[in-house]
Amino acid sequence: MSWQITAAEISDLARGAAVLGTGGGGDPYIGALLASAALQEYGAVTVVPLDEVPTDAVVLTVAMMGAPTVMVEKLPSLDEVISPVRALNAYLGRPVTHIACAEIGGVNSTIPIAAAAALGLPLLDADGMGRAFPELQMVLPTLYGINASPLAFSDEKGNVGVLQTVDNSWTERIARVACVEMGCSVMIAGFPMSGDQARESLVPGSLTQCVEIGQEITAARNEKSDPVERIVTLLGGRELFAGKVVDVQRATTTGFARGRARIDGTESSLILSFQNEHLIAESDGQTLVTTPDLIMVVEHDTGEPITTEGLRYGQRVRVITAPSDKRWHSTEALAMVGPGYFGYDVPPHRFDGTITVVEELA
Amino acid sequence: MSWQITAAEISDLARGAAVLGTGGGGDPYIGALLASAALQEYGAVTVVPLDEVPTDAVVLTVAMMGAPTVMVEKLPSLDEVISPVRALNAYLGRPVTHIACAEIGGVNSTIPIAAAAALGLPLLDADGMGRAFPELQMVLPTLYGINASPLAFSDEKGNVGVLQTVDNSWTERIARVACVEMGCSVMIAGFPMSGDQARESLVPGSLTQCVEIGQEITAARNEKSDPVERIVTLLGGRELFAGKVVDVQRATTTGFARGRARIDGTESSLILSFQNEHLIAESDGQTLVTTPDLIMVVEHDTGEPITTEGLRYGQRVRVITAPSDKRWHSTEALAMVGPGYFGYDVPPHRFDGTITVVEELA
Repeated sequence: MSWQITAAEISDLARGAAVLGTGGGGDPYIGALLASAALQEYGAVTVVPLDEVPTDAVVLTVAMMGAPTVMVEKLPSLDEVISPVRALNAYLGRPVTHIACAEIGGVNSTIPIAAAAALGLPLLDADGMGRAFPELQMVLPTLYGINASPLAFSDEKGNVGVLQTVDNSWTERIARVACVEMGCSVMIAGFPMSGDQARESLVPGSLTQCVEIGQEITAARNEKSDPVERIVTLLGGRELFAGKVVDVQRATTTGFARGRARIDGTESSLILSFQNEHLIAESDGQTLVTTPDLIMVVEHDTGEPITTEGLRYGQRVRVITAPSDKRWHSTEALAMVGPGYFGYDVPPHRFDGTITVVEELA
Repeated sequence: MSWQITAAEISDLARGAAVLGTGGGGDPYIGALLASAALQEYGAVTVVPLDEVPTDAVVLTVAMMGAPTVMVEKLPSLDEVISPVRALNAYLGRPVTHIACAEIGGVNSTIPIAAAAALGLPLLDADGMGRAFPELQMVLPTLYGINASPLAFSDEKGNVGVLQTVDNSWTERIARVACVEMGCSVMIAGFPMSGDQARESLVPGSLTQCVEIGQEITAARNEKSDPVERIVTLLGGRELFAGKVVDVQRATTTGFARGRARIDGTESSLILSFQNEHLIAESDGQTLVTTPDLIMVVEHDTGEPITTEGLRYGQRVRVITAPSDKRWHSTEALAMVGPGYFGYDVPPHRFDGTITVVEELA
């Protein structure tokens, strides 16, 4: 059943999205500000479950692309947020009917809310990943043969571009260099799809799940119980490690925030490697968990999610892990988002430490 | 009066264009091949003088963008040549009526002929520079407030993009990084303008002049007279230097062929600095001629133009220079294409060695 997002839900939703964002997707605070402002100005947004989306819908994903380290200093205006949707309306020659999230993650779960509010369009209760990934072709729709093109990008200066590429990796490559040239952060809209394509390829219920995670954290804090345990239970995951952040190496290169963080526990250390999102967790030279399963860092006591660009020396944190959408464990998906793609010579390790057994794409 | 270009004119036209291309604009041989093939397949192209272009014409410039060093190895197909025009037809929502050359130079005088032939459209007897320059905003239409946007670019793989930017420098910046990512050479179409705008801003008679230069060279060779003297007379320029190429430094960086060449004469040396096109000629630490006036290198005896990427050790060459369109000596123009823009701390020197006196933009 469809439901309404108002400014009241944004805080929980943004916090839950930042948990699922596995460290990436941009600063949840920035995204929440923008979404709240849009909801207050334009009214509530209707959130539509996938099974209620009309077959002939024209769905577009909306997202911010770039380095989170830059996004936190470049809050987009609402004009900038809707500019790529407007460009695609004109390019497609037919009106967009629904907005969807490309990924779940700080800014990229809330910016589509702002876009939907400003455009007066419903938002799908779904996203393209069930988590966040650093490159735009890394969405389940790519696996179902849905084109990222036409994809529009826009910056705060008023520059707009529309790409029509031969595959989704080329959309990423060209949009990424344009993004870097335009200041390392742009708004994008793309992956036009029908209601049926959205139903087949997106991860259902993402926004509901974000709100639930956020509510669970809030409830735990109010009830003085452990928020982290409750997140882990809700996600069907496990707690991987607890300790203190003792080292963070971070560089913004080729439009990404890349780096490594070391967390010291009582007996051992955990090393996290990230490219916008956490990709690998290892300890004593042993791989524990890898992309595509979720690796999330939260503040030790409050369960507050910490993004990769928010990691600081001395933070007391817990690292939790949870299974990804199972379609990410198919052969095609692992070629796109497995550790090998990111240059790590290890097989994909699941959240429970087992080596991935490849599953069929449903 | 309008005239017809057939495959018979291409050889002279391409040779003349390569002279005016001041070392850039891509390999004339490559462009001539493509234009001849298109004219043979689709028939002659009508060349229309500026004063006969209808007021309500929709004119687009067509060009190849990238490093000449790459263009010589990546001959575009006719499909690729017309792809950005097709994209703009759709984007503009009205049919393009005329094609124009953005610049005069090897490939960029002949590729628009191929495009016009394949599209069945007339070609203007004009261009945007009266020479070649390395960046896309460096055309006289920019000085008249004509937008490069919408500008489309396409590659040989089938990727296409359309840009709508806030100014022509941003069109250059975004198209350039896309071009580099797409393999350092793309086809572009842009600067949509009316017949009146074309009349006001373009350099008239360019294609006619190219054919005349080419015919003059051919005639001189047949009559055993000096082709170089005849080019100099035709252009109202002067011969600057004669000697042997003894050193060429060349690097393809950020999508451009940049470098320096040294030519040793009997008593002194000439240093040429180039970025796709020759920008500065100096001798014994003295600046002789700079952009925007034309600096051209031709083979010593035959007058055959030599592009910057064609410069080789041991070539016996003559360096000639000629005045640019006088609008290039206005304040606005010199800020865009003067030696200072390219990082040289010298005032603009004209072909006759005098320091430029700024002229009003007519």
